[in-house]
Amino acid sequence: MTALKNDRFLRALLKQPVDVTPVWMMRQAGRYLPEYRASRAKAGDFMSLCMNPEFACEVTLQPLDRYPQLDAAILFSDILTIPDAMGQGLYFETGEGPRFKKVVSTMADIEALPIPDPHKDLGYVMDAVSTIRRELNGRVPLIGFSGSPWTLATYMVEGGSSKDYRKTKTMLYDNPQALHLLLDKLAQSVTSYLNGQIMAGAQAVQIFDSWGGALSAAAYQEFSLAYMRKIVSGLIREHEGRKVPVILFTKGGGLWLESIADTGADALGLDWTCDIGSARERVGSKVALQGNMDPTVLYAKPEVIRTEVERILASYGKGSGHVFNLGHGITPEVNPEHAGAFLRAVHELSAQYHA
Amino acid sequence: MTALKNDRFLRALLKQPVDVTPVWMMRQAGRYLPEYRASRAKAGDFMSLCMNPEFACEVTLQPLDRYPQLDAAILFSDILTIPDAMGQGLYFETGEGPRFKKVVSTMADIEALPIPDPHKDLGYVMDAVSTIRRELNGRVPLIGFSGSPWTLATYMVEGGSSKDYRKTKTMLYDNPQALHLLLDKLAQSVTSYLNGQIMAGAQAVQIFDSWGGALSAAAYQEFSLAYMRKIVSGLIREHEGRKVPVILFTKGGGLWLESIADTGADALGLDWTCDIGSARERVGSKVALQGNMDPTVLYAKPEVIRTEVERILASYGKGSGHVFNLGHGITPEVNPEHAGAFLRAVHELSAQYHA
Repeated sequence: MTALKNDRFLRALLKQPVDVTPVWMMRQAGRYLPEYRASRAKAGDFMSLCMNPEFACEVTLQPLDRYPQLDAAILFSDILTIPDAMGQGLYFETGEGPRFKKVVSTMADIEALPIPDPHKDLGYVMDAVSTIRRELNGRVPLIGFSGSPWTLATYMVEGGSSKDYRKTKTMLYDNPQALHLLLDKLAQSVTSYLNGQIMAGAQAVQIFDSWGGALSAAAYQEFSLAYMRKIVSGLIREHEGRKVPVILFTKGGGLWLESIADTGADALGLDWTCDIGSARERVGSKVALQGNMDPTVLYAKPEVIRTEVERILASYGKGSGHVFNLGHGITPEVNPEHAGAFLRAVHELSAQYHA
Repeated sequence: MTALKNDRFLRALLKQPVDVTPVWMMRQAGRYLPEYRASRAKAGDFMSLCMNPEFACEVTLQPLDRYPQLDAAILFSDILTIPDAMGQGLYFETGEGPRFKKVVSTMADIEALPIPDPHKDLGYVMDAVSTIRRELNGRVPLIGFSGSPWTLATYMVEGGSSKDYRKTKTMLYDNPQALHLLLDKLAQSVTSYLNGQIMAGAQAVQIFDSWGGALSAAAYQEFSLAYMRKIVSGLIREHEGRKVPVILFTKGGGLWLESIADTGADALGLDWTCDIGSARERVGSKVALQGNMDPTVLYAKPEVIRTEVERILASYGKGSGHVFNLGHGITPEVNPEHAGAFLRAVHELSAQYHA
């Protein structure tokens, strides 16, 4: 494998010294970029982009070509590839978000679910990872990812997005054994899926627990965090002679940082409701932190974006252990020049915190 | 005025001893009740219910007639009465939520906004309060309420509900002076509106900061909490020879409880993501706590509801200072018998914590 030319991102995740704070953006290969929209038009639709390794590679590299400040690439894919590989029939309706043809309702539905083989059933993702890794040619590290078991379960039980997760929570409270079996199958699936990505070339992995924050404190521990802990303990943590850091991101999980830090993960993702300085005081000796600018700040003037970047850097303070990011994915309406101003500000303003 | 027959709710808000933990439900006069749906059909639509004091009184009392366990009544009204009284033109589109005919975009728009006189411009609310208070005839205390300045501002700037508050946050970051002027006018309006409700007979008041949790930690302090603090300091705190407790409820505000408790409010509302025992450790010496069962638990079997009630009571522990509630409004699909099981469980299971 080609030597890594920029390893700031991996070093910061392990709290090793860096020259400037590394930065990337969740959903950085996305609709705010005209070149992404052109690729997507060419591919036909979103899932065709994901399922074709050449297209997935093309859009993964687009933000890196536009923004030399980006310190990591992230696999272009969807969080719902695993339920799709379980036979649920993922599809997208315009303006409606993801949907599944089959819905999981009963213990029998769950017992019948297979655990996908990453190479056989999700080979297109493994191919995308190895293609991107080859094309990156050591520029920056490649992040692999998956949805968390709880987050995947909500889509499988609701049949799509949801406002209040009524069906999933009714299963949680009325039929917890069924939900536990589903989550256990998902945890096994996510573990082998992420290990497949690591073997194919992913140099760090992130688990997106997008809807963990919808749970009560007690239910979060039992139905989301426990399964992420299980995954973390089953992951390949060293590959190609280097540590493979694991990042857990529960959106809305700011109250539970101490217990998320106890899972054995290397880093926690933070949304923008957490003050990153307080978060560091609470868990900073155990884990690195990733985040956490409100993505809507990117709608503001570049000088305001710069002020917000400075505020977050100052709040984190001196030393390594911070990967700058947004607190959630970048939105389609953002002006790409504002994203550029954000990325430049992180590198320019952070050097003083690493002197 | 008639003597209050049940003052558990007011006593718990002031941390005075009680026999059992008092309970009420946000949105307890709502669509889950067939008698509410009948009244609404009779009135025509939602705003006709709100604007007619007799109808507002009728639906306020319905849950009390059905559930003898309820320890408080809450004024039936909408949080958007103030922007409507400012001339923004509130209306509801079926299935779409609230909308405004006018939208606030510029400093000039904000400068032109009047501060409503509660008696002249919101007389129908004052009349509803005094009518309900009279008809309650001392059964339980009556809660008045308002939206918070930040929450009201989001509706006025977006023109309705929003997913990411793009316009309001762009104003916040790009034109903070304009937003501050709007929030200041709203804080003045809310203060006189709540004081009007208190003079008309409200025995406690709650401020609903439904969207404060969408802000960054720093922006929350400056653009939401500061204005709630201003309101708290301007409220009538004693009336009819009795304290008038103030409850602040920021949904998604669990990370900021310490600073919310510092406003001078008597009690904090908690959503279900907070563990109420941890919340009590953090702020319990300063304020009472209200909450916090996930409303979706009401979809579960009555015995599961009972277990959750017990879990929350045990987490809060012994002694006064807890008003049981849901962590958000009850939803239209809930079976009214499940709501009854919830209310009974609170009284039955809580006596041991007050022995």
